[in-house]
Amino acid sequence: MADNVVLDEDRPWQELERLLDEGSHDNLEAYIADLAPSDVARCIARLDAAHRDIILGALDAGTAAELLEQLSDAQGLALMEHTAPDKAAAIVQELPSDSQADLIASMPAESAASILGEMDPDVADATRALAAYPADSAGGLMVREFVFFLGTSTVREVIQDLRRRADELEELAIQYIYVVDESGVLAGVLRLRDVLLAKGNRLVSEIMINKPAAVGVTAGLEELLDRFEATGFLGLPVEDEQGRLVGLIHRAGLDEAFDERSELRRLKSQGIVGGEELRSMPVLRRSSRRLSWLSVNILLNLLAASVIAAYQDTLSSVIALVVFLPIISDMSGCSGNQAVAVSMRELTLGVIKPIDVFYVWRKELMVGAINGVVLGLLVGLLAYLWQDNLALALVVGLALALNSLVAVSIGGAVPLVLQRLGKDPALASGPILTTLTDMCGFFFVLRFATLAMPYLVPA
Amino acid sequence: MADNVVLDEDRPWQELERLLDEGSHDNLEAYIADLAPSDVARCIARLDAAHRDIILGALDAGTAAELLEQLSDAQGLALMEHTAPDKAAAIVQELPSDSQADLIASMPAESAASILGEMDPDVADATRALAAYPADSAGGLMVREFVFFLGTSTVREVIQDLRRRADELEELAIQYIYVVDESGVLAGVLRLRDVLLAKGNRLVSEIMINKPAAVGVTAGLEELLDRFEATGFLGLPVEDEQGRLVGLIHRAGLDEAFDERSELRRLKSQGIVGGEELRSMPVLRRSSRRLSWLSVNILLNLLAASVIAAYQDTLSSVIALVVFLPIISDMSGCSGNQAVAVSMRELTLGVIKPIDVFYVWRKELMVGAINGVVLGLLVGLLAYLWQDNLALALVVGLALALNSLVAVSIGGAVPLVLQRLGKDPALASGPILTTLTDMCGFFFVLRFATLAMPYLVPA
Repeated sequence: MADNVVLDEDRPWQELERLLDEGSHDNLEAYIADLAPSDVARCIARLDAAHRDIILGALDAGTAAELLEQLSDAQGLALMEHTAPDKAAAIVQELPSDSQADLIASMPAESAASILGEMDPDVADATRALAAYPADSAGGLMVREFVFFLGTSTVREVIQDLRRRADELEELAIQYIYVVDESGVLAGVLRLRDVLLAKGNRLVSEIMINKPAAVGVTAGLEELLDRFEATGFLGLPVEDEQGRLVGLIHRAGLDEAFDERSELRRLKSQGIVGGEELRSMPVLRRSSRRLSWLSVNILLNLLAASVIAAYQDTLSSVIALVVFLPIISDMSGCSGNQAVAVSMRELTLGVIKPIDVFYVWRKELMVGAINGVVLGLLVGLLAYLWQDNLALALVVGLALALNSLVAVSIGGAVPLVLQRLGKDPALASGPILTTLTDMCGFFFVLRFATLAMPYLVPA
Repeated sequence: MADNVVLDEDRPWQELERLLDEGSHDNLEAYIADLAPSDVARCIARLDAAHRDIILGALDAGTAAELLEQLSDAQGLALMEHTAPDKAAAIVQELPSDSQADLIASMPAESAASILGEMDPDVADATRALAAYPADSAGGLMVREFVFFLGTSTVREVIQDLRRRADELEELAIQYIYVVDESGVLAGVLRLRDVLLAKGNRLVSEIMINKPAAVGVTAGLEELLDRFEATGFLGLPVEDEQGRLVGLIHRAGLDEAFDERSELRRLKSQGIVGGEELRSMPVLRRSSRRLSWLSVNILLNLLAASVIAAYQDTLSSVIALVVFLPIISDMSGCSGNQAVAVSMRELTLGVIKPIDVFYVWRKELMVGAINGVVLGLLVGLLAYLWQDNLALALVVGLALALNSLVAVSIGGAVPLVLQRLGKDPALASGPILTTLTDMCGFFFVLRFATLAMPYLVPA
């Protein structure tokens, strides 16, 4: 009653901080359980560092694991960094097996080792094994929890066993039951509805789907997507090199991994290199990550600027040209980026492959020619109206027209060439494009102006 | 044998064109069935227009529908445009109900009407009803196919009925069975495993989950994602305003819609406005869509250029300044875009809301200050080494430092402000940022240079 702290409705993390200070475990858990899912990530991000470091420790391992599952990898990792190894180990053990491995794999080696040391040795071994697979492979994406029977079991035995394990199965939300032989090699798959619709005395091997679709433990993201597209299944069994069933990969987990990769590529393409950045990260880390990218960019900028430096005499004579340099640079950059975006989209859709670079180039030449003429006329007209100088209008209009053509053909081709060279097109396409179109654009304007000098500056 | 046409392994569409010319229906279907899923979209994109227009007509309605399901919306739509309405209607009827509605909704009204006119009247009515819901709402994303029983049925009756309809159920890949009352109002949900594990004489109403999670037919993408996150289910029932069960929404369908929206936003942010562009589209359409965006951009460019135009006298006196204008423009643009990317990411993750603009601004000020100082020193040093002029170094270094600060704080805040104003941040953030940072950057350099003129040009 006497409490006159006003809780701002839009700052739920303040209540969280208050509950953490108060130290009431139950109130804290109840408050977190009541938070809207859309508020959880925001709340954690806005906690001050002192409270953020202790929140996992103040929760049950189970509740803490649920909380982690609602956060992005980077946010979860930051919370775990400040949690004592024994508590962290308890939390990791509550996570689904694929998340366990992801988390361990993305931690610094030392923290990972001390957490694994505190875990149940069997679970720790299994987690180590999973974490050793590349994150984007079937091994890295699979869960180790799946339900399997021998082909010689009867339907009745299967149902009895499932009933006995109902509680355990509840958590797994099983869709398929796998059938293996004595050595653990995958022999077939049973759908729940087949079990439901079959007579009790039939053998599993009679009603199972033989030679079911399966993926190898080393299969990569593209291969996995292709297999899911081709089969339409919600889950696929994962086999090791000997054909033994080792895990299960869910369509949903695969989609998540794919989205995450796309998102990281998008961030990269805008200069956030080295993983996602959240504003709750330390300022020096954010700053230095961004600088690593900007400092490469400054070198590329010098290349473009050197073209201008070479034509200072021309610029001194016709200072109005300076006004058009950034227009030509920006417009060409935009035109080229449109072509980059279409190529990236078509690569994602599988509509083009790196080998199609000449097809793309031909298709872009046409768009580049049309848009170049339109934009060149527009900017030429503006130049003429402003300076009443036909030669200036021709110089800047022609330069923009030509450079648009250059920009869209380079923009369309660059992502394919980079992909063919095994480089990430998301990271390098933009800067390469901008540098080349700036250099070309500045060169066109200044070279044409030098040639047209007698007409630009009437004697 | 005498056939000496060499089929390029990497041009499978040539074989497709040959088979279309040959007119052999069976060979064509067999070839398409054998195509790797990853080659289908590419093949269709590379067919010449004449063959592309006839391919759907040359296939069974069922095969044509399967083909459409492997293509992106834009590609599928382009194929359907050239297919006769009666054939198109047959193909649409083979699609899942959510795809039917999507396709009809994205067609020109006239084509949609003529296809619906050729369809089975009941299916046409249902499709019209679905197509009337916004594409990003529960109504637009749901399928109409689901399995339901009355609560008064026994488990034995349910199993018997399911056995009778085994073929039909095969296609639906059912996960849940819904329970309704006499007026069609949703009463509960049954999981297959609950049916499997229950005794035959129990009533459905005894083993069902009461008051199951459900979504309203008008729920939007964000609300749906929240509900799926909160429940962890693979599917959710959809209710109309009266609580009647009208459809079922799959997690996978929702994720697809969300990915599609993200992808379109990414394209928009790079200047591809009005939906995705594929290079198989008519060149004038591609060209004019890109121009619509570029022509807005040219106006923004004029704003920035007008700052330079105002300082022509300063530039004439110190022509070396011109070399630094594009460097400052590009570097600040990149710094600002990094902040935009982080804000867009944090908005997607729910880590920030539009109301957090001051928090973001504070966080960016720190990064902007550090990076501004580093980049300013670097560029200032370069200027000094090149021109041996301390005043020039100070002018460009200080201008870049200040402008980096401006760029990151604007870049971080702009997406939030646009979102708050109900505008799409993906579309407008980049151009607004670039224009503002160019104007500021040019102003800083030229204003500082004007003030420092006595030191820049020694008498």
